[in-house]
Amino acid sequence: MAPIKALLFDVFGTVVDWRRCVAGEIDAMAKKYGIEVDAAEIADAWRAEYQPAMEEIRADRRPFDILDILHRENLDRVLARFNLDQISIDDRDELNLAWHRLQGWPDSAEGLKALKRRFILATQSNGNIALIVNMAKGADLAWDVVLGAEVTGYYKPCPQAYDRACAALGLPNEACMMVAAHNDDLFAARQQGMRTAFVCRPAEHGPNQTKDLTPEADWDYVATSFIDLAAQLKC
Amino acid sequence: MAPIKALLFDVFGTVVDWRRCVAGEIDAMAKKYGIEVDAAEIADAWRAEYQPAMEEIRADRRPFDILDILHRENLDRVLARFNLDQISIDDRDELNLAWHRLQGWPDSAEGLKALKRRFILATQSNGNIALIVNMAKGADLAWDVVLGAEVTGYYKPCPQAYDRACAALGLPNEACMMVAAHNDDLFAARQQGMRTAFVCRPAEHGPNQTKDLTPEADWDYVATSFIDLAAQLKC
Repeated sequence: MAPIKALLFDVFGTVVDWRRCVAGEIDAMAKKYGIEVDAAEIADAWRAEYQPAMEEIRADRRPFDILDILHRENLDRVLARFNLDQISIDDRDELNLAWHRLQGWPDSAEGLKALKRRFILATQSNGNIALIVNMAKGADLAWDVVLGAEVTGYYKPCPQAYDRACAALGLPNEACMMVAAHNDDLFAARQQGMRTAFVCRPAEHGPNQTKDLTPEADWDYVATSFIDLAAQLKC
Repeated sequence: MAPIKALLFDVFGTVVDWRRCVAGEIDAMAKKYGIEVDAAEIADAWRAEYQPAMEEIRADRRPFDILDILHRENLDRVLARFNLDQISIDDRDELNLAWHRLQGWPDSAEGLKALKRRFILATQSNGNIALIVNMAKGADLAWDVVLGAEVTGYYKPCPQAYDRACAALGLPNEACMMVAAHNDDLFAARQQGMRTAFVCRPAEHGPNQTKDLTPEADWDYVATSFIDLAAQLKC
């Protein structure tokens, strides 16, 4: 078995705390309009549109578009559903950038710096390049390279998303480890021959999270944080 | 005029000292075979095949291939010309990775770290992703994101190479500054509306360099090193 050379990270939920951050921006926006909303519920509804939007592309019913565009379309749909039609176009455009401003979990920045000493750190996210780069600048995430949907042309969990990311690094899939808080991402990565690390993020979906609280297979590594993962990998 | 948000770097010659490094690896390889060669001459010959190989792709006479593949084909051609047919396939494959192991100019690592405090730092190189990532790990080059030919699908100086790199960052071209030691790269970038910085690298082609010793236009910035550029940009 080839030694692990690169760690490829899922980002939303695994590295950054999207729900709290997006809800915070929705809340601030609502205050500006003098309205009261359940910001976490709207954040959840926005995120719930994420997989169906990508599925249109994965299923070849629509050509590839970057996530910023899908997020923006999904936002219009969600605001309409919550009767928030008064939010202006400019404010919607600005709110859409909330995804560029997500903050890491408390261990993310420090853990990545430790892991970077021994491994190539790549993002393998469905987020587009600008989103991931702006987030990294704001949240101090020390990536070596931004891969993911905009580079590979495929949204996870398409097999090509994993294969092309590893190929872009010039590495066999087994020398690349997918790091994710989501069992389904790891199942898809393992199917393509990648190594797997599950980092549990029990607060991703708020206090009532029921999914991904435990590893659902014998993943190569199981960790409670990136700092824990770095220790297990002897970084 | 939008403020500059991102610096896009040419890499070969601007960031790394390809001639000395490649010649050093050719020299070591020749010694292994007990032969004497003019390693710098072979390095120059190898590099001279670079533009013609990309031109086949730019002119649509061949589909896109990454630079590792072009470098490897060019190496065979050059070794044949220098009557070095005895170099084994494995050794050729290994020598081809010399481009992944290039070292920076003395100011490169430190200068990039200073520039990174204020700007997004992107590679905008014809090198492929693996080449640029491996080089960055070896030479301590603190990129935020790897762009360039493999991401945009176009080799410089095609206009699309510049336009698509800026678009991937979600920025107007005028918010992006091309940093290069080559006037022709800057002319092409300016043509697409990018800002321009010329960093003079008078030793890129060895002691007898005649090209790119001076700025050939009124570039937005002219610097003697990345540290000088960082000071001018108040980093």
